[in-house]
Amino acid sequence: MSLTKPRTMPGVLELLPLDQIAFQEMLDNIRAGFERYGFLPIETPAIELSNVLLTKSGGETERQVYFVQSTGSLIKGGDPELALRFDLTVPLARYVAEHEHKLNFPFRRYQMQRVYRGESAQRGRFREFYQCDVDVIGKDSLSPRFDAELVAVIDQVFQALKVGPFQVRVNHRMLMRGLLEHLGVDGSEQQTLVLREVDKLDKRGADHVRGSLAGEGIGLSSDAIGQLLDFVGFRSSGVDEALAKLETMPTSNEALQQGVSELREVLTLVRAFGVPESNFAWDCAIARGLDYYTGTVYETVLTEHPEIGSVCSGGRYESLASNYTKSKLPGVGISIGATRLYWQLREAGLIDTGRSSVAVLVTQFDPELFDEYAHLASMLRAAGINTELQLEPGKLGKQIKYAVKAGIPFAVIAGPDEHAKGVVQIKDLSRQEQFEVPKDELIASLRVEIEQYRAMALAKEPTS
Amino acid sequence: MSLTKPRTMPGVLELLPLDQIAFQEMLDNIRAGFERYGFLPIETPAIELSNVLLTKSGGETERQVYFVQSTGSLIKGGDPELALRFDLTVPLARYVAEHEHKLNFPFRRYQMQRVYRGESAQRGRFREFYQCDVDVIGKDSLSPRFDAELVAVIDQVFQALKVGPFQVRVNHRMLMRGLLEHLGVDGSEQQTLVLREVDKLDKRGADHVRGSLAGEGIGLSSDAIGQLLDFVGFRSSGVDEALAKLETMPTSNEALQQGVSELREVLTLVRAFGVPESNFAWDCAIARGLDYYTGTVYETVLTEHPEIGSVCSGGRYESLASNYTKSKLPGVGISIGATRLYWQLREAGLIDTGRSSVAVLVTQFDPELFDEYAHLASMLRAAGINTELQLEPGKLGKQIKYAVKAGIPFAVIAGPDEHAKGVVQIKDLSRQEQFEVPKDELIASLRVEIEQYRAMALAKEPTS
Repeated sequence: MSLTKPRTMPGVLELLPLDQIAFQEMLDNIRAGFERYGFLPIETPAIELSNVLLTKSGGETERQVYFVQSTGSLIKGGDPELALRFDLTVPLARYVAEHEHKLNFPFRRYQMQRVYRGESAQRGRFREFYQCDVDVIGKDSLSPRFDAELVAVIDQVFQALKVGPFQVRVNHRMLMRGLLEHLGVDGSEQQTLVLREVDKLDKRGADHVRGSLAGEGIGLSSDAIGQLLDFVGFRSSGVDEALAKLETMPTSNEALQQGVSELREVLTLVRAFGVPESNFAWDCAIARGLDYYTGTVYETVLTEHPEIGSVCSGGRYESLASNYTKSKLPGVGISIGATRLYWQLREAGLIDTGRSSVAVLVTQFDPELFDEYAHLASMLRAAGINTELQLEPGKLGKQIKYAVKAGIPFAVIAGPDEHAKGVVQIKDLSRQEQFEVPKDELIASLRVEIEQYRAMALAKEPTS
Repeated sequence: MSLTKPRTMPGVLELLPLDQIAFQEMLDNIRAGFERYGFLPIETPAIELSNVLLTKSGGETERQVYFVQSTGSLIKGGDPELALRFDLTVPLARYVAEHEHKLNFPFRRYQMQRVYRGESAQRGRFREFYQCDVDVIGKDSLSPRFDAELVAVIDQVFQALKVGPFQVRVNHRMLMRGLLEHLGVDGSEQQTLVLREVDKLDKRGADHVRGSLAGEGIGLSSDAIGQLLDFVGFRSSGVDEALAKLETMPTSNEALQQGVSELREVLTLVRAFGVPESNFAWDCAIARGLDYYTGTVYETVLTEHPEIGSVCSGGRYESLASNYTKSKLPGVGISIGATRLYWQLREAGLIDTGRSSVAVLVTQFDPELFDEYAHLASMLRAAGINTELQLEPGKLGKQIKYAVKAGIPFAVIAGPDEHAKGVVQIKDLSRQEQFEVPKDELIASLRVEIEQYRAMALAKEPTS
């Protein structure tokens, strides 16, 4: 029989077990952070009905959609009735509208699942990847306090991830819109053009942006450009500085007034939540979500790795599910692209291979004593210790070598002498030390050893 | 704008948050059981290349495959190059073959992910569902001891799931094949026919099966039928009884000898692993996997709910990845269809709505004291207690009602009087009791309360 080359499609991240453990730890940390703030889990199917998923004429998004057809439907022909979700926001909208009368509002949900996009194949671009989203959906209205709480959630999660210093950068779309109006940039199309230029500040520099803003198609006065860049170049280094700068904002229109007032409330409250002031800032250059977001917007950067870009973004939106329900459901949310984040952290050397989920290998010194080894393994497992039992006989050296290669930190060894004396040997494979304990102290001793090993491993992590 | 009806495709199980928590607990228990026995996690992409996924001319399977096409590929036309996995075994084979030189053998992996099948829509049949698989893959050979270990894994998992009494039923395909040969049923086609009839014993009864076995197309002698049904009607009620019955097996061919010897080893070892003898049996009627399995086969039933059928099945196979590699990779594995299991347990009243992952609601008695409430919430979160903070003002009664409806067990209440005295009220929402503690004892008191609440909730679970 001819062989098929075993391979995955491009644009997926498939991991070896120890890397999978590291990735799983990252997901567990994110989940714990979301739950710490009282968010509830949901999961939705990866396959949605096409006409439900694609209600908006989605332009760029639609071009990346993966459609799904069963064999029967393929034979019948016609347009595919099913499609894979490309984010978790549209499924959330569908979920909230579908289950509206069974949910508590404000509805605080988190969701950590894979999404699918027909991206062009390119290093670091994924076609199947995890998103970890938190959203709060209000009925009719939702206080800006929820916008503040999400900054605290991001802070909680990224502290737990131990990826070094980070900063949540906050801005407000209404404030930006109001400021542009104030500077004579009217109409959302024209404002979008300007914000798109502003977005290039980091990459192209102020001179380039100044030129574009003065040039054809936009044609701002140099005075207006000066005022705009004064704000857009501003990033607060503490809440008081941010509040002071907010005081200097013009107040010539309602959008400006509301934007300033909400942003003030958000920043003040983030501090009241106990988030360290170095971990968040008002950054007037954040202009994300040109049409979608209507209030607060967030980006999060690893301060020592700006090249990675935003690792957690989101914002406030007017109405979540207007395609599915007449109810007004304003919301605010954030999203972590966990697959891409993991990949980038690994590339940047900020994340290592995981520690094995196996704590102990019970070795087979003497095949005659196999039942004794089976008993030891059962004992350890009953005590909650993740244990692998060497099932096939072989040289002890080879067994130990296997454990080391597999990243298992401890081995239990017992030959006929130990058996006769009622003792066992515990071998610490990372420190190459070995010591003897009475069999009935095995569990207690191993617990201490494992605890120490974990504490040491934590202390050794790259940036903790 | 006209509204789109928000709905999912038929054949998916989408849960409300508290049910999702119960389901997640089930998955966490399964994962913990797998890890307790030293299995390592992997995840593979849901989307595989069609020509890699569908190497075998899969008949029934292939008809249920969901194919995937990006918009671009749809426009181009032609056969879809991508498909969704329909199980976790083919992706495992692809994974092991692809990463063969980076893996340790025997490769002990678990995998808990969704799979996709274009089933016809029917109550209790799912098109998108979780499978939780454990497999051990050997290189060249793999001892029957691994077959025994998997029974212990099933035992560990189902004890942790607390779904009442269960039994893992074990049989051996070679023993069955040898027995059939011994009775004059030669050739795999003919044997398949006979085993298919035997599979109907539970549903159609012995008389019906006796008739079919004697009838056209099979034509067994009544003596042969008697011998066959003698074994096939046998289910051991302990290891010693099983071993005694195995002694009475004919030994007229090699398959019989090997089957008897391996099954003896497996049953003896399962006992040595400490699995209670009521939790497993030799059941000669288990004939699962007509072609695929070649040695041990497993089914697991909830003894008080036989109508549910097998909740965990699997077996031993000759070679995992012969489509992808020349290496001989024998394996043994089990699979839990977690979505279906959850659905069935819920239908049978064996599983309840989950307890909220939120332990405490910090209420807002006096909007003026909001910063104090934010501080209390931060304190509790820093202590590792999952806390929701009431962000919007409102009547206390309404806040408490919300907490009760959301399943949050405790509320923290502090008005101006408490604030002045440096105390807070803890309200136990399940027992409708309330008591006062000094603010600096809040964390310690709540920890005790939450501990007690969890213990009580565990004790109340349907069948624990």
